[in-house]
Amino acid sequence: MRDGQAGYVVRMQIAMVGLGRMGSNMVRRLQRAGHECIAYDVNDAAVTAMEGEGVTGARSPQQVVAALAAPRHIWLMVPAAYVADTIARFEPLLSPGDTIIDGGNSWYRDDVDRAAPLAAKGINYVDVGTSGGVFGLERGYCLMVGGPTESVQQLSAVFDSLAPGMAAAPRTAGRDGAIGSEEHGWLHCGPVGAGHFVKMVHNGIEYGLMAAYAEGLNVLANANIGSESHAKDAETAPLSHPEYYRYDIDLAAVTELWRRGSVVSSWLLDLTAQALHTDPMLSGFEGRVSDSGEGRWTIHAAVDEGVPVPTLAASLWDRFYSRDRGDVAHKVLSAMRAGFGGHHEVKDTAK
Amino acid sequence: MRDGQAGYVVRMQIAMVGLGRMGSNMVRRLQRAGHECIAYDVNDAAVTAMEGEGVTGARSPQQVVAALAAPRHIWLMVPAAYVADTIARFEPLLSPGDTIIDGGNSWYRDDVDRAAPLAAKGINYVDVGTSGGVFGLERGYCLMVGGPTESVQQLSAVFDSLAPGMAAAPRTAGRDGAIGSEEHGWLHCGPVGAGHFVKMVHNGIEYGLMAAYAEGLNVLANANIGSESHAKDAETAPLSHPEYYRYDIDLAAVTELWRRGSVVSSWLLDLTAQALHTDPMLSGFEGRVSDSGEGRWTIHAAVDEGVPVPTLAASLWDRFYSRDRGDVAHKVLSAMRAGFGGHHEVKDTAK
Amino acid sequence: MRDGQAGYVVRMQIAMVGLGRMGSNMVRRLQRAGHECIAYDVNDAAVTAMEGEGVTGARSPQQVVAALAAPRHIWLMVPAAYVADTIARFEPLLSPGDTIIDGGNSWYRDDVDRAAPLAAKGINYVDVGTSGGVFGLERGYCLMVGGPTESVQQLSAVFDSLAPGMAAAPRTAGRDGAIGSEEHGWLHCGPVGAGHFVKMVHNGIEYGLMAAYAEGLNVLANANIGSESHAKDAETAPLSHPEYYRYDIDLAAVTELWRRGSVVSSWLLDLTAQALHTDPMLSGFEGRVSDSGEGRWTIHAAVDEGVPVPTLAASLWDRFYSRDRGDVAHKVLSAMRAGFGGHHEVKDTAK
Amino acid sequence: MRDGQAGYVVRMQIAMVGLGRMGSNMVRRLQRAGHECIAYDVNDAAVTAMEGEGVTGARSPQQVVAALAAPRHIWLMVPAAYVADTIARFEPLLSPGDTIIDGGNSWYRDDVDRAAPLAAKGINYVDVGTSGGVFGLERGYCLMVGGPTESVQQLSAVFDSLAPGMAAAPRTAGRDGAIGSEEHGWLHCGPVGAGHFVKMVHNGIEYGLMAAYAEGLNVLANANIGSESHAKDAETAPLSHPEYYRYDIDLAAVTELWRRGSVVSSWLLDLTAQALHTDPMLSGFEGRVSDSGEGRWTIHAAVDEGVPVPTLAASLWDRFYSRDRGDVAHKVLSAMRAGFGGHHEVKDTAK
Repeated sequence: MRDGQAGYVVRMQIAMVGLGRMGSNMVRRLQRAGHECIAYDVNDAAVTAMEGEGVTGARSPQQVVAALAAPRHIWLMVPAAYVADTIARFEPLLSPGDTIIDGGNSWYRDDVDRAAPLAAKGINYVDVGTSGGVFGLERGYCLMVGGPTESVQQLSAVFDSLAPGMAAAPRTAGRDGAIGSEEHGWLHCGPVGAGHFVKMVHNGIEYGLMAAYAEGLNVLANANIGSESHAKDAETAPLSHPEYYRYDIDLAAVTELWRRGSVVSSWLLDLTAQALHTDPMLSGFEGRVSDSGEGRWTIHAAVDEGVPVPTLAASLWDRFYSRDRGDVAHKVLSAMRAGFGGHHEVKDTAK
Repeated sequence: MRDGQAGYVVRMQIAMVGLGRMGSNMVRRLQRAGHECIAYDVNDAAVTAMEGEGVTGARSPQQVVAALAAPRHIWLMVPAAYVADTIARFEPLLSPGDTIIDGGNSWYRDDVDRAAPLAAKGINYVDVGTSGGVFGLERGYCLMVGGPTESVQQLSAVFDSLAPGMAAAPRTAGRDGAIGSEEHGWLHCGPVGAGHFVKMVHNGIEYGLMAAYAEGLNVLANANIGSESHAKDAETAPLSHPEYYRYDIDLAAVTELWRRGSVVSSWLLDLTAQALHTDPMLSGFEGRVSDSGEGRWTIHAAVDEGVPVPTLAASLWDRFYSRDRGDVAHKVLSAMRAGFGGHHEVKDTAK
Repeated sequence: MRDGQAGYVVRMQIAMVGLGRMGSNMVRRLQRAGHECIAYDVNDAAVTAMEGEGVTGARSPQQVVAALAAPRHIWLMVPAAYVADTIARFEPLLSPGDTIIDGGNSWYRDDVDRAAPLAAKGINYVDVGTSGGVFGLERGYCLMVGGPTESVQQLSAVFDSLAPGMAAAPRTAGRDGAIGSEEHGWLHCGPVGAGHFVKMVHNGIEYGLMAAYAEGLNVLANANIGSESHAKDAETAPLSHPEYYRYDIDLAAVTELWRRGSVVSSWLLDLTAQALHTDPMLSGFEGRVSDSGEGRWTIHAAVDEGVPVPTLAASLWDRFYSRDRGDVAHKVLSAMRAGFGGHHEVKDTAK
Repeated sequence: MRDGQAGYVVRMQIAMVGLGRMGSNMVRRLQRAGHECIAYDVNDAAVTAMEGEGVTGARSPQQVVAALAAPRHIWLMVPAAYVADTIARFEPLLSPGDTIIDGGNSWYRDDVDRAAPLAAKGINYVDVGTSGGVFGLERGYCLMVGGPTESVQQLSAVFDSLAPGMAAAPRTAGRDGAIGSEEHGWLHCGPVGAGHFVKMVHNGIEYGLMAAYAEGLNVLANANIGSESHAKDAETAPLSHPEYYRYDIDLAAVTELWRRGSVVSSWLLDLTAQALHTDPMLSGFEGRVSDSGEGRWTIHAAVDEGVPVPTLAASLWDRFYSRDRGDVAHKVLSAMRAGFGGHHEVKDTAK
């Protein structure tokens, strides 16, 4: 049921394959909306847990398929590395008109490649890029959908229930006509792969946004560098004007401040303010930052398209640096410096 | 009056010098809160306009100073290039204990340099970085304040009135004790210059955030490049897999979509969605992007501190590129290519 | 014959397919060294031209194959976009033990993909990344070779003749034992694809080197910006210290200067100095810089490997910018600025 | 004496202040050319060492000045941090018409600031940016000179002797008229500061060149990542095509290879090939890369000029990263990821 509209209700039957954090929360949100979910995971304990919440469990692909009336809808919520295997296990059990939905973090090209042989058998394939993380159960999930129009329309009630709904944000000024599904928080972006393509870019942007905040906070955290004493040596230029770098900035207070009225307010900033309030020195973190695919694929796409993405790329390199992946390059630099200048590496006191 | 607190009310008298978009709206917001403003601008018409709204106008620095009871508070809201001159005109008229506030976009180093001679005469100097733009009148202004503690405390009622107030955002989880001023939307960040320092970094971050969205949308806008036909030539590598670049993405719908439930939701995204809804091709813009100081100064500070800011810097270079400031470099590249490879510049058909 | 070694001479027979600038010069260099070349191109005129220089021409793949004794060596020097088609035309005509060499600018992955089916038929595949450009005829070609060891060994006399030879550079200090082929200017880098992989990275580095010079020269070219007058407005921060930017630097003289004794001396610098001497304002160039594959593929590889390549990537984005590929992003930025600040695009007078 | 010209000989008397690696080698090169040097250092042992080589030593500024006939030429070769103090010690002892030369790595703005008060007393100031490093004694020094024309002309015999001379590189094609000083390896770049400005940009370019090589070699060093096994998890995307990353590249051989005939040949490459030959794993280096001023100042200048320098800046950030200066930013990123996705930092196995 879409909120804010005359109350039509469509109840659907759908299987959720993969009961990790994301999959199990999506089951909960769908059940709350009145849909009937069949829950399956290779890990039996996860199925049992969902059963304890009143969801119908299944313990094999066969049971999943048997529990669904045709045309079946099977939503995969598994790590990208397992999607191909999972499809291979279900595909022989399905009938023409059934639909597989990949709601995980797959590369959009894999969607294109996987959809073709399924289509030859009459099986539909829909890709859904999902944003929302651990808050999705309550806030709803932002859904970027690709695939054949008919399949997407069949699933619209499911998307309506998973999405945050119109009330999640004020209506954009100037929008006053018919309400598009994007205003509920889901969108049919185009043919197969389009959902994961848009999600890929979404995450590429996310990397860039995160890096912008992180770099800026690093500048604030080092604003007191003029108060430190530095040795004078031939290797290091003296800080020209230490008197201009004597600020001891409270990062937790500043990020809280920016949440109200500033141009940089955002949900990511809200999270940062909370983290800094809880742990002002972020001492619980080592600073090794993972990257999980979409950030990389966004760069691949930009390179193929011939589009400059310097900030998005910089945010990816930054994560590589955080995991010491620049080490070989740095040794080469030190070797060159030793070669032309007789410079020896020094323990960097001035930083 | 701070919203949400037992109702103390402090009415202050304050002069606003500079009645542009920002200054005049701040006067309006202060008057609404019950403060008494003296409005002055070198442009008489701007003063007359404010008088038409019931504000007391002044037509010279002398009149401004005469209209205020000591200790006086004079808030400058003038372009950065005119701050020094404006201070020079007021300084001879002021008395020990008076305070000059620079609420514009000055470089924080100028604050430090300007405060010292004023302090020698007993005149206080407070710097205020202000975010909020054209929406500040209604939403309130996010205020980053630097200066001596006593001066800042004297002005706290003014800051309370200009700031958005606590209701502008949900309280951060984990904050449950005394309410800091940052939760109202203003913060005393440190000694003189600290306010503009934090505002500088705020804008540096803003540049990075904006670039992240812009680059991502450019990737989406070019997702259909595989549908175009390209000539094969020795200068241009063929697009390896055109079949993966055949998406015609609706940018206005996607940005609207991301406003609800996604990790990249923000106020900047709200503005982008609105702009794209109004003008889907952004045909009203040429794409020459100004930069107004803070983005540059953030890079200067990071370089001085020895802190890597690749995404913030990339967003600045991007604006320089938009104004064709890379032209000399590009001609050098073409000259090199002609030199070693006999490559001639070609009208780029494939892009 | 390797220069500097006891005089063994091996004369080989080899076909060159593709008689563009590179292919025809390689034929000339091979003939001079005593090898027998069969020259072929889809363009008859190019064949005729080579015949005029005393080279044996062929006018069809069949004639090429017929003119060669088994085991045959067929060197392709065609644009990357035509390699697959060319292989397809020759493959049916070849016998087990024959070798196809791709000396062009192919993506190393295509080598891997193309070699497998050929290997199934007993046909060898060798990939050669070639650097040297229009100067290769006289200077020799730097050759990066991938493929099965036996095939590479068969071709060593050809590689010796194409390569610059040991005299092209002083021997590296510390090298005093047996002379490796790399000291002659060619190297068997690894199995199939390794040659083009190394060439890919070579060109990625080349992009970075070129950009470093170009950017630095742009900084020099704008060193006089403090002598220009700028209007003061709210959009543009005034140049803080124009007195420090009043240098009128002679780029042609500076690049010539750096050729002797400086750390940045290089062949690319030599070419730049020459170009600037001939055309000090580079008025013959528009500044639209092509990119021909390897620079892009280097970024793809770095992303896949998880290795940070910020300067190499920046040099690629720079070329995209030069061809106005950032336009959509720039319009988005201007739209945002109009949204939050009421900023209008201005004709950038200050730049 | 300029090599290659009809043999005029000018012998000059000059004092060298600062007898570190650079200063003492410059004394040696000047003495060999027949000039008379007075050698001084605050460290007596350094003076004694030069005296052991037959150079006239001095043990105080007074002795330096007394040893020179007017007009005196005093060349400072001290760390940038000590230039101001050194000038302050000599200035009271000098007479109108005398000249101070700063041959170290000063910021060009300091030249401008220091020259003005000296000029008021009739003392000339010349700034010389010097490239050549430890090889300068034999190769000669590339000299970038700023200052008043008359002073520079007085010193031309000294510059001629220190510079590498015309024979250091083949004459640029197209140059056939009068020989400019830049062809000998020194250039009067403009008024005071111009020498260090050009040297600053020279080093900025150097940083970019070094980074380009280092990053490319890092890509080669990781070309075998497809041979490693990676765990599948939700945090890390699987490497799409490990079969394309199975190359074990010999970096020492490749860098040696590129020295002959390739577009990337350069002196920096020569040094890299030598370092890798000596220590193929560069195990003697930790990878903490210093930066000594000019790289930073180049970015400052580019920002002030409004010129994009993405590769030069990236090479500076890279050095900051090598010294763990991104740590705060990386912790912020990890905190955000924990916030929105419940992601925990993992020991990065896949890298």
